[in-house]
Amino acid sequence: MGNTFGHLFRVTTWGESHGDAVGVVIDGCPPLIDIDITDIQKELDRRRPGQSHITTQRREADEAQILSGIFDGKTLGTPIMIGIWNTDQRAKDYEHMRTKFRPSHADYSYQAKYGIRNWKGGGRSSARETIGRVAAGAVAKKILAMQYGVEIVAYVKQVRELIANINADNVTLSQVESNIVRCPDQDMAAKMIDHIEQARKDGDTLGGVVEAIARQVPVGLGEPVFDKLEADLAKGLLSLPACKGFEIGSGFSGTSMTGSQHNDSFYNDGERIRTRTNNSGGVQGGISNGENIVIRAAFKPVATIMTPQETVDEDGNSTELAGRGRHDPCVLPRAVPMVEAMMALVLVDHTLRQRGQSGMG
Amino acid sequence: MGNTFGHLFRVTTWGESHGDAVGVVIDGCPPLIDIDITDIQKELDRRRPGQSHITTQRREADEAQILSGIFDGKTLGTPIMIGIWNTDQRAKDYEHMRTKFRPSHADYSYQAKYGIRNWKGGGRSSARETIGRVAAGAVAKKILAMQYGVEIVAYVKQVRELIANINADNVTLSQVESNIVRCPDQDMAAKMIDHIEQARKDGDTLGGVVEAIARQVPVGLGEPVFDKLEADLAKGLLSLPACKGFEIGSGFSGTSMTGSQHNDSFYNDGERIRTRTNNSGGVQGGISNGENIVIRAAFKPVATIMTPQETVDEDGNSTELAGRGRHDPCVLPRAVPMVEAMMALVLVDHTLRQRGQSGMG
Amino acid sequence: MGNTFGHLFRVTTWGESHGDAVGVVIDGCPPLIDIDITDIQKELDRRRPGQSHITTQRREADEAQILSGIFDGKTLGTPIMIGIWNTDQRAKDYEHMRTKFRPSHADYSYQAKYGIRNWKGGGRSSARETIGRVAAGAVAKKILAMQYGVEIVAYVKQVRELIANINADNVTLSQVESNIVRCPDQDMAAKMIDHIEQARKDGDTLGGVVEAIARQVPVGLGEPVFDKLEADLAKGLLSLPACKGFEIGSGFSGTSMTGSQHNDSFYNDGERIRTRTNNSGGVQGGISNGENIVIRAAFKPVATIMTPQETVDEDGNSTELAGRGRHDPCVLPRAVPMVEAMMALVLVDHTLRQRGQSGMG
Amino acid sequence: MGNTFGHLFRVTTWGESHGDAVGVVIDGCPPLIDIDITDIQKELDRRRPGQSHITTQRREADEAQILSGIFDGKTLGTPIMIGIWNTDQRAKDYEHMRTKFRPSHADYSYQAKYGIRNWKGGGRSSARETIGRVAAGAVAKKILAMQYGVEIVAYVKQVRELIANINADNVTLSQVESNIVRCPDQDMAAKMIDHIEQARKDGDTLGGVVEAIARQVPVGLGEPVFDKLEADLAKGLLSLPACKGFEIGSGFSGTSMTGSQHNDSFYNDGERIRTRTNNSGGVQGGISNGENIVIRAAFKPVATIMTPQETVDEDGNSTELAGRGRHDPCVLPRAVPMVEAMMALVLVDHTLRQRGQSGMG
Repeated sequence: MGNTFGHLFRVTTWGESHGDAVGVVIDGCPPLIDIDITDIQKELDRRRPGQSHITTQRREADEAQILSGIFDGKTLGTPIMIGIWNTDQRAKDYEHMRTKFRPSHADYSYQAKYGIRNWKGGGRSSARETIGRVAAGAVAKKILAMQYGVEIVAYVKQVRELIANINADNVTLSQVESNIVRCPDQDMAAKMIDHIEQARKDGDTLGGVVEAIARQVPVGLGEPVFDKLEADLAKGLLSLPACKGFEIGSGFSGTSMTGSQHNDSFYNDGERIRTRTNNSGGVQGGISNGENIVIRAAFKPVATIMTPQETVDEDGNSTELAGRGRHDPCVLPRAVPMVEAMMALVLVDHTLRQRGQSGMG
Repeated sequence: MGNTFGHLFRVTTWGESHGDAVGVVIDGCPPLIDIDITDIQKELDRRRPGQSHITTQRREADEAQILSGIFDGKTLGTPIMIGIWNTDQRAKDYEHMRTKFRPSHADYSYQAKYGIRNWKGGGRSSARETIGRVAAGAVAKKILAMQYGVEIVAYVKQVRELIANINADNVTLSQVESNIVRCPDQDMAAKMIDHIEQARKDGDTLGGVVEAIARQVPVGLGEPVFDKLEADLAKGLLSLPACKGFEIGSGFSGTSMTGSQHNDSFYNDGERIRTRTNNSGGVQGGISNGENIVIRAAFKPVATIMTPQETVDEDGNSTELAGRGRHDPCVLPRAVPMVEAMMALVLVDHTLRQRGQSGMG
Repeated sequence: MGNTFGHLFRVTTWGESHGDAVGVVIDGCPPLIDIDITDIQKELDRRRPGQSHITTQRREADEAQILSGIFDGKTLGTPIMIGIWNTDQRAKDYEHMRTKFRPSHADYSYQAKYGIRNWKGGGRSSARETIGRVAAGAVAKKILAMQYGVEIVAYVKQVRELIANINADNVTLSQVESNIVRCPDQDMAAKMIDHIEQARKDGDTLGGVVEAIARQVPVGLGEPVFDKLEADLAKGLLSLPACKGFEIGSGFSGTSMTGSQHNDSFYNDGERIRTRTNNSGGVQGGISNGENIVIRAAFKPVATIMTPQETVDEDGNSTELAGRGRHDPCVLPRAVPMVEAMMALVLVDHTLRQRGQSGMG
Repeated sequence: MGNTFGHLFRVTTWGESHGDAVGVVIDGCPPLIDIDITDIQKELDRRRPGQSHITTQRREADEAQILSGIFDGKTLGTPIMIGIWNTDQRAKDYEHMRTKFRPSHADYSYQAKYGIRNWKGGGRSSARETIGRVAAGAVAKKILAMQYGVEIVAYVKQVRELIANINADNVTLSQVESNIVRCPDQDMAAKMIDHIEQARKDGDTLGGVVEAIARQVPVGLGEPVFDKLEADLAKGLLSLPACKGFEIGSGFSGTSMTGSQHNDSFYNDGERIRTRTNNSGGVQGGISNGENIVIRAAFKPVATIMTPQETVDEDGNSTELAGRGRHDPCVLPRAVPMVEAMMALVLVDHTLRQRGQSGMG
């Protein structure tokens, strides 16, 4: 259970890191949307391993194949199945940890939950699972852009204690893609890259924060009470591997303000109702208010490090383990398209829900 | 839509702040659980308005009535309906804002979404909606305690910039309940109370952070991929009114650590597999590992302030608005039982899911 | 679990036959629909016990109270809670069967499933549970009529071997309501009433068939593959107490035709595409084609009879049991509004789903 | 939407009749179940086209490939993806009907719903979609057999007006498989085969009834109110292509009995509580009572006939159309494994649900 996301635009991912293939089924996609394989491939390429010297060197082309749901370049309204074959598994990299639990990985908790696990890689807990999300997110972005003009941009806001200075309201995709760490603050980006390279040399890893923004979001998305827009965004983000925190608008820092400082006054800009500030992050009472939606997600440092660590094996015996194989020293640059995908999946689902209930949109 | 939470233990809340009643239907509750009305009432009393001089002075007894699902003191396994009648509405407190949108409230976004709203109070966006959650959470806590020995404790960790020093592993409910701000650090509690009283006098409001812990959680709860335990917790918490942020374990502060600092080493304590540290917050790969689950939720300062603010009315005209009536200067003390309730609802749902799929538990 | 129906227009019923109250929560109702309590009450009155001498003589006014979700006579788009208080329970009618399982009732299977049951009446298995469905169905009918012009009429087609002759395409609600058995074939209605009266005198019971028709249904409702319109209708109907069979269009009798006899030819009537015959019953490939939707549901004879029957008690001992109290000799007349309600709930849910995915309707 | 079935054991099918592939994702499967590809393949072979001279001559090996979820021959508890590549599409068989709507097919209703359809075959409305169900059903059967000893057998009960005489309580799979029409009444089977052959020669088609039985079903499966076991079975069966009717136990024929004739008396057979008769069909109040579950499904005659029929094209113009290509003259023999699959999917889902809520099973 738990491999499906969304209420009307539903994605189900499948596949293990070191199995034959991974992929996604999208059910509930509106019909007659133009989808080209390149729409999907360009997003997968942003997520792909081996894309730069600061990511894992696993060599996967991650070529998407559309097996159903698209006909003559248009969506049919029926399930879209996208598969990506794994080609560069090296199960032998995992042979030495066949019976050992990697610290801060999911080996132990999966084994305890199911009584079995695919030890040849991380199975479903691997970031490789997110391929399906990114592919589905590409379809979601297309719908949002075409039908509502929504624009979603994410970027690396922080690597360890290096915090970038970025104007969320103006930042563009091309700025984000202008360097390999996906941080549009060029000076800070250079420092981040150096820091990641040093961590790799040390056999260590780093974490950080991704910030994402959605612009031109229609007013009225999100459902009271439990399916508030920020609640679904939080779930979507926390469901990403290594994510440990989420905030919207002022988030944790908003707790240091008083109400009179924090409240977003309404005014009429001549065309529509706006707010003077956006501490709400574009959502009030769980429902979008037409301002930019701004969220942040914290990612812990990657768990696989190259130095020996204390652990236990399946029989409960004490042992040691050091990482081998090809891993990311910092997941942040590749997390950017994942965060965008989850944001797009939440937003497109809520556009369909709003249209279903109210006939608007 | 969106008024139901949970996959097997499903709660549906209903009712507006200033309607006749509010309540909850619980579907999927295990049968034969001993439930006394006092189990529920004692939790509602912790959430109740007017409980102290630092909360709203609205006078509601919030007396729970069980209308179905319990027979001879035991759950039947069929829907439990709990209703609470509203007795102290004062719609006239809202008359002056009938057509005006309160800043950082949900008035505007509800009106835009539905084309209608119950302007006599906050409707579904009011914290009054959480009565149903707290009532259902009381049932969830009972099941968790009886069947698994799980213990859930939440408390106020921070009010504005006042941060308490609390050992999450040892803190008890009676320590939490020993003062009206629900902060078990007594010195800091006194300062928080002063700060809240001052804010009330100023007609202003404060925010803060609630921390919650669950102990004795069985290993194996949580579902890959989208229904990770932390993802469902994040959704549950962010669905609470005024919540703007969530973190688990090391959360945002974990981003400043390296992997070698952050990883939780495994060891065998003679009885079971444990971790030396708990930066993971009791969850790895979305699945509980048997350590304490530790989460934090950020609550913004209450939006209703007593000083005039710029806003617009339903026709888009500029106007001013100042709060009237009875409101909390700080939602934190009353948020504590709400946070516990959401945590309990997530955990009980996942115990049933795990038992369903794997026959364990 | 299992007390919720619908994907976007979701109804959750609650309450036991001999508890304090029964009712329903409707989530996902479109906003701004005019709902008057009389819209709901008039349908409940058609379902009410004691409405004629051929139904049970239990005296329940079944007065609906709307506790949330409607404001100034219009739906808010948030949960509508409708409660009906039980006033004429006589638990003593059930005292003699406290530990005995009534044949062909749900006593044994509930006891085996849950280890407990409310023996004071049928609990959730009672037809009293359908009050909530009929109340929600009234709201669904209103939406269907207002937004799409859909008209739903059901009637008694058969009582035991008495089969009425009715033109489904023309029959009206007032014809149905013109006699107490709700069969618009007046001659056959008289015979049915006689037959039911004789059964009552004999302490025995009768079954039969309800036929229902929906006219002006928009083209395009229903989802491939599992949520075909006829699949959801079948589920809705079979979920009614005592229902043992369902068919759409030609149904079971269609199996005696060849394909060349059974196929519905398409033609253009000048305004739209129609079919010459309607063996499909208005649905093809799970999707409405604009023709009238025609379904039939078989109801078994009521299980409570007044003559002694062999059975066992909770300890497995052989014993005897005869019905007491007030029961229907034939459920068919009161099943008519229940069938209409389920048909309306399915159709309104699919109108919202279609609007959500495709933006049509 | 609508391509997913089940609440805890969830199957999602994908793929069009004349696309690249079809398949299924199973989510929520219990871990540690032994699954061999032959378990799946043997069921697909029973469903396969071209298996005998009375089925369609389309040549598909229908070879299942397991792409995820199984490791070392055991289920992992994570999604099982099974794909089957289409190898013998002949889109040219459909070229002549590219813009014409086949009578009693789904061409028109799909086109009206989505504004687009894959005209190269029946797309999602094709019986080819059921491959995924049969594959998933094979997994479900394995679990039911291993964990509960449940045995499911279906067979052809009727072809047009030829009705077989079969003892549902004793019939075996090998009896069913002993002839190509899958009717264990050998004399009637011979007549059915003749009748189907004659229909093929005439370019016409036949319908009929499949009966299915489940034995050793645990007591307590099924959920009040909407998810009654018979309601979910009805939905499952009516979701199959060409199915127009469903009944359980006495079904429609039970309406001609009185209550005193129809009621199933309870007795104690020394080991457990049984009923003397089984008019209830193994389900009372929506919950299994331990007796055999007996259901019947009506299938209309296949819509594709080889003689010209009146129809219209996409522009609404009158035209004619005759079937070409390779089609079944009677779907019944191949429907048998589909019916078994749907029954297995419903039962396995309810075993997990019961275990989840009550910890039993």
